[in-house]
Amino acid sequence: MQLGVTGAARSGMVACGGWRVGSKLATTILRETSQSHHPSRIRARFFSLESLDKEKGNRERVIILGSGWAGYGLARSLDPDYYQPVIVTPRTYFVFTPLLASTAVGTLEFRNAIESTRLIPGSSVIRGWAEDVDMKNKKLTIQSAVERRLKDYGNAGEVERGKATGYDLVGGEKLEVTWDKMVVAVGSFSQTFNIPGVKEYAYFLKDITDARAIRRRLLECFEEAALPTAPEERKKQLLHFAIVGGGPTGVEFGAELHDLITEDLNRIYPWLKDYVKITIFDVAPRILTAFDEKLGKYAEKQFARSKIEVLTNHAVEKIEPGYIHTKEEGAIPVGMVVWSTGLKANPFVTNHLGKTFEISGEDRKGEWELVKNPRTKGLQVDNHLRTQLRSKTDENKIIPSDALYAIGDCANLPNPLPATAQVANQEAQYLASTLNAVAKREKNRSYVTAPVISIANEKPFAFKNLGVMAYLGSWRAISDFGHHKGLSGHAAWVLWRTAYLTKSQSWKNRFLITCQWFINWAIGRDINRF
Amino acid sequence: MQLGVTGAARSGMVACGGWRVGSKLATTILRETSQSHHPSRIRARFFSLESLDKEKGNRERVIILGSGWAGYGLARSLDPDYYQPVIVTPRTYFVFTPLLASTAVGTLEFRNAIESTRLIPGSSVIRGWAEDVDMKNKKLTIQSAVERRLKDYGNAGEVERGKATGYDLVGGEKLEVTWDKMVVAVGSFSQTFNIPGVKEYAYFLKDITDARAIRRRLLECFEEAALPTAPEERKKQLLHFAIVGGGPTGVEFGAELHDLITEDLNRIYPWLKDYVKITIFDVAPRILTAFDEKLGKYAEKQFARSKIEVLTNHAVEKIEPGYIHTKEEGAIPVGMVVWSTGLKANPFVTNHLGKTFEISGEDRKGEWELVKNPRTKGLQVDNHLRTQLRSKTDENKIIPSDALYAIGDCANLPNPLPATAQVANQEAQYLASTLNAVAKREKNRSYVTAPVISIANEKPFAFKNLGVMAYLGSWRAISDFGHHKGLSGHAAWVLWRTAYLTKSQSWKNRFLITCQWFINWAIGRDINRF
Repeated sequence: MQLGVTGAARSGMVACGGWRVGSKLATTILRETSQSHHPSRIRARFFSLESLDKEKGNRERVIILGSGWAGYGLARSLDPDYYQPVIVTPRTYFVFTPLLASTAVGTLEFRNAIESTRLIPGSSVIRGWAEDVDMKNKKLTIQSAVERRLKDYGNAGEVERGKATGYDLVGGEKLEVTWDKMVVAVGSFSQTFNIPGVKEYAYFLKDITDARAIRRRLLECFEEAALPTAPEERKKQLLHFAIVGGGPTGVEFGAELHDLITEDLNRIYPWLKDYVKITIFDVAPRILTAFDEKLGKYAEKQFARSKIEVLTNHAVEKIEPGYIHTKEEGAIPVGMVVWSTGLKANPFVTNHLGKTFEISGEDRKGEWELVKNPRTKGLQVDNHLRTQLRSKTDENKIIPSDALYAIGDCANLPNPLPATAQVANQEAQYLASTLNAVAKREKNRSYVTAPVISIANEKPFAFKNLGVMAYLGSWRAISDFGHHKGLSGHAAWVLWRTAYLTKSQSWKNRFLITCQWFINWAIGRDINRF
Repeated sequence: MQLGVTGAARSGMVACGGWRVGSKLATTILRETSQSHHPSRIRARFFSLESLDKEKGNRERVIILGSGWAGYGLARSLDPDYYQPVIVTPRTYFVFTPLLASTAVGTLEFRNAIESTRLIPGSSVIRGWAEDVDMKNKKLTIQSAVERRLKDYGNAGEVERGKATGYDLVGGEKLEVTWDKMVVAVGSFSQTFNIPGVKEYAYFLKDITDARAIRRRLLECFEEAALPTAPEERKKQLLHFAIVGGGPTGVEFGAELHDLITEDLNRIYPWLKDYVKITIFDVAPRILTAFDEKLGKYAEKQFARSKIEVLTNHAVEKIEPGYIHTKEEGAIPVGMVVWSTGLKANPFVTNHLGKTFEISGEDRKGEWELVKNPRTKGLQVDNHLRTQLRSKTDENKIIPSDALYAIGDCANLPNPLPATAQVANQEAQYLASTLNAVAKREKNRSYVTAPVISIANEKPFAFKNLGVMAYLGSWRAISDFGHHKGLSGHAAWVLWRTAYLTKSQSWKNRFLITCQWFINWAIGRDINRF
């Protein structure tokens, strides 16, 4: 293999390209992928744990558990001159979650909503699950994640773990990695309230694999309904799409689904048009409770115009194949149920981080445990995002940990914030810049005897509410910036598109998403099911 | 659902768009998707078999079995003023097979290589398998194809059929459709020579689902090799990619894989670079036997430079997970095996079309059977692509059928042609234009007593060899136009790209593929595995 030959040719051609816009874009992209040439910024090239140790130098190793908004954001922003970030994650990509609904209906390609964690300069990635945390010796046991399909291995072996987490992965070899700091950014799971059948038969919308499953199913509903033998009742059932949960995720999925059907599927299956129905169920008296009531009303009016039914004050009691059971109306025939009713704690936080442990230090004898929020079961953190340790011998003795941090959905600040991408992202940015600042000052400390720089002396985290937005279909959206400042309709849609485009992580995907939106506008979505 | 409102808005905006190139493209695309407004050209809107009958009018119904190069090409070109084309196919899309290798390595998106059969104006599609052919009463029994996944139905039921054909589909309701003409265009299966393990553990490259499976596996090979715990031997095994069959498919896949690795994967897994190996196995003394020997040598030289090993005169004896066994070298550790050693007859032709039957007509008493080619087991056709009927009572009595035609891989002309996309496409175009001409003249026949227009009086099919091409990696290709006229290197690559782009079916995909190629050149392929 001749590494770089073609790559060099490509960049050379970009550099001498006379096309102005293209070359500017290409330059930006090249800068993005090559970054600075400082040695420690070169992407880690480790073969083994030994080479990881060798490359560490005098930097602190920061193990980041998770590659979502929190973990990915942190890894990208930690300065590899001062830290060695190691991401531990069973999936090796970051999902730009606000665009998941778009990928589920084919408005965007799946690749438009993901970024590889392996391309973060200076970071290393270990594909696996955190298995056990040794707080005293600062050691993490990782169960590596591998795919073992019958086709490739003859014997698929134990796949329970893969099933439980939604990935086709099973546990491989275990390995131990030491850490100086560890950041828990494992996120949360979908809340099912233990309603029977939800886990088995409903579709979630948290990962790219979920989006693909939804896409596959919804196109199959149309295909089965298109069979000449399909009875009337069956067509109605197959083409009734139920969404449980009137939050932004559920609402945006409903809106995108409506667009897909009116703009593309009605053209392919014109005779099925009148059978299609979308219903949003919510147990609350109104949808979009995170928005100002006026905007919520606007959304409901918009949905009524699009013939998306909104059934508030409805409690789902059971899901079974082909039916959703509500307390109010009994069994309702459906083709698929998309479930998005909120979040619950990640079992890793509940179980693995629920054990007692010892820590090192003169005044820190005895057993300790991590402080959890009693309601969310998330990790309690202070305003510097440090986890809190409680002594088992003295319940009132609570000290912050300078080694273990938590950010994103699994972290609970003293003043609780919602478990959103925006919060996770801001926490990640705060932690990265604060840790960078601490390390820089620690390195420049003039006297060895001068006091050690602590994160506790840094400015605490403060959330800046940038507002909430939701797409409502037919080129309309709503935006809420708090304090009754809101926007609705086409203007909000423009804002929504712009925001998603500028918030999108890499220049690569910003460019791809722009292309994709143009392509959809000009020639429609991809409607093939394969 | 408000059909067309947004669609109309979209086309309106396209029409008044001031952007010159864009509006020209948009106009072309609009013309393509809306076609003429002649009533019979409106896309069939059938709810049931009754409405299909109702819409038939005085046209002949042509049932087309299959949606590959032959079936899709025919359905697109039959004139819906004279015929009612009904496509019967378990998958409802056409695959542009020459681009499959590109999609398998992420150079193109999967959607770039497929076209929906449901968008052919005037055609109807029944998703299913042909089950039984009644030649006397011209009736076809169809087993409809549905997906029954555990998640959606609770009980997956019998999935054997789905497994056998490579689709996740099972047999649903049966239905009967009558026909005036039927065209068998079911294609062929991959030839495995009954070598043990090939069917179970090798990867084929015939459908878009195959391409996705290959992509998933090859990225997984890199991911597993990237685990810090992976032993040296295991890395070598995982990153050894074996291709069996040195025809254009195998060779192009090897070339595309090489490009993917050097241009993209080596950037992400730089420390795995030296473990990667690609080997092409062929039992013949040289690869690319369809090409002039000089071009074949050029290809081998090009591959030697790219470090793709070509092992000719090697007979594969067995495939098992992780190993390929050859007679010459025994067990060789591999990460995956891509199998492309040619084609064998479709079981539908061998079994269902192997029965004896009665036909109607005074002089056609007794039992009849279809004439098959003894070597390929394909359907023998004459130069008008009509199948041949042999009397069971008199072996020398062979008559052509004016009702049953065969085109593509499953048809055998008197002068045999290779089973390629080019041949299938030309046969489809010939049959469509000949049937259109016959129907037109039959309609304009001045006297009822004038002789019936028969296809036998039309010009026979003649194959026009447009040459063969193969991509060799690193922007190089070879083209062979017969009679020692060939082209190799970058010029052939330009020709290869241009040909694939202009041969690509719809304007939509031509546009998308151009975008995609530009995107890859500027920012690389999609390398996320999900």
